[in-house]
Amino acid sequence: MSLVVIGSVAYDAIETPHGKRERTLGGSCTYIALSASFFAKASIVAVVGEDFEDRDRALLAEKGVGLEGLEQVPGKTFFWSGVYSADMNDRTTLQTDLNVFADFQPKLPAAYARQPYLFLGNIQPVLQNQVRGQMNGVRFVGGDTMNFWINNSRDELLETIRNWDFLLINDSEARLLAGENNLRKAASKILDLGPNTLVIKRGEYGAVLFRRDSLFMVPGYLLQDVFDPTGAGDCFAGGFVGYLAERGFDLRNGRADTQELHRAVIYGSVMGSFCCEQFGVERFRTLTRQEIDQRFDEFRRFTAF
Amino acid sequence: MSLVVIGSVAYDAIETPHGKRERTLGGSCTYIALSASFFAKASIVAVVGEDFEDRDRALLAEKGVGLEGLEQVPGKTFFWSGVYSADMNDRTTLQTDLNVFADFQPKLPAAYARQPYLFLGNIQPVLQNQVRGQMNGVRFVGGDTMNFWINNSRDELLETIRNWDFLLINDSEARLLAGENNLRKAASKILDLGPNTLVIKRGEYGAVLFRRDSLFMVPGYLLQDVFDPTGAGDCFAGGFVGYLAERGFDLRNGRADTQELHRAVIYGSVMGSFCCEQFGVERFRTLTRQEIDQRFDEFRRFTAF
Repeated sequence: MSLVVIGSVAYDAIETPHGKRERTLGGSCTYIALSASFFAKASIVAVVGEDFEDRDRALLAEKGVGLEGLEQVPGKTFFWSGVYSADMNDRTTLQTDLNVFADFQPKLPAAYARQPYLFLGNIQPVLQNQVRGQMNGVRFVGGDTMNFWINNSRDELLETIRNWDFLLINDSEARLLAGENNLRKAASKILDLGPNTLVIKRGEYGAVLFRRDSLFMVPGYLLQDVFDPTGAGDCFAGGFVGYLAERGFDLRNGRADTQELHRAVIYGSVMGSFCCEQFGVERFRTLTRQEIDQRFDEFRRFTAF
Repeated sequence: MSLVVIGSVAYDAIETPHGKRERTLGGSCTYIALSASFFAKASIVAVVGEDFEDRDRALLAEKGVGLEGLEQVPGKTFFWSGVYSADMNDRTTLQTDLNVFADFQPKLPAAYARQPYLFLGNIQPVLQNQVRGQMNGVRFVGGDTMNFWINNSRDELLETIRNWDFLLINDSEARLLAGENNLRKAASKILDLGPNTLVIKRGEYGAVLFRRDSLFMVPGYLLQDVFDPTGAGDCFAGGFVGYLAERGFDLRNGRADTQELHRAVIYGSVMGSFCCEQFGVERFRTLTRQEIDQRFDEFRRFTAF
């Protein structure tokens, strides 16, 4: 079943201990949609400038990503550059040029409005809410946010996530949102804010899924080589929601097996791990569903007792 | 089956955001033996001073810990004091008085020499090796070390662990020992140094077990309240080796199910989590085997997919 993804499409300049790239396709929407595309049809709503290259559009099209909602306007595409520390646990942002993304007003094509799954990437909460309001009959909706909105648009954010099924954030964001350092207590507070499902990403250490009646923990996949962690969290999101879309997960109509949520967290972890194996989105050019399922099986083998 | 544990017995002064204790029983040997005592007979080799209190000896005896090798000598017991940060992810050592521990020369009672399991807590590698040499017919031997020995007694340490079955250290120690930042590559190098089994502890993030032919990852147990993390890593060690002793794990004679090692890592995680629930060793006064097994089952439920 199909999925709509809102977020940023960007160009990134990235330096890691393994090398550098001056200008490579990036942005949350790009990573989420590419990752989800291995499971389900993903259609994006995003904006790019005149400098957006045909070969990048072609990569998305080749993976079946729906591009009707990819608006191209005068100006330059969102640009970000950053450099990672030697152990890749820290990164420093060198430059953030919002460019055309500064005035992004998501316009949902009519054909998107009745799609059953919606992932609202990290943009202004008010805009996330507007998009949400244009969708009819959505089955499973949620998304991401960041410290900036938690600090500066708290009321709008709370209003926005109140009607989400799931929230997918990292541990520092969860602590900030809940005002609570203990992760389990923080999760409990966040579940009071609306979402019935909370996924907290912990980077290389894995992820935890919280629901009122259950808890699911997964350790991080240990890679032999981490080339570039950029986008790994977004690829986790894409694998998570993409898998649920593939399975037709339907919480609202009571036809959902919540064990599917656990498997979705594993597929998220799998996609995040592949993302780190090459620069930017490179790994997705050659990745196959068979490789994905093999790594899913590895997760089972590496965690069974 | 029974187990010998070598290490420190100490008094600790601890301050966490939940309160403070001026003088509470601690030391690696204490935590390891108390934790292991829920699974198997644990006998210790350690030294204390004249100030060692009867009630602390009584606690160990009550848990069935063998005290024949607990030497009492003139002087004061090892004393450590430290304070934890607000989020308890960092701690600052305020004071370390080695006292009688400075001249510790482990003396193995004759009755210990033929016990099948041996855990060598973090002391001078040369002393660890001497104790190892006094044991006959040991089935499963290994232990811990720390950055200080890796940096300052590297040759002695390598000579010592060459004949160990397992090494149980944390991630920063593993990286330092291997001279390699990537954990999977570091583990591969360490397995070349002798031990057939490597357990890397990652604090609140869980642990990973590495063998030539297998890998097992476990996420950290999420506690509602972390009162005091002191000793959690040692309690992990005690649960790990204690469970294997209980099961009669016997790698050398080919009668071992390596899946038992995975379950031992879970029991280690369980014991580490209980340790954090109260100050010092307090939790072990009331802990029952039933609670331990319930948490083991929780681990299964929280990680199954």
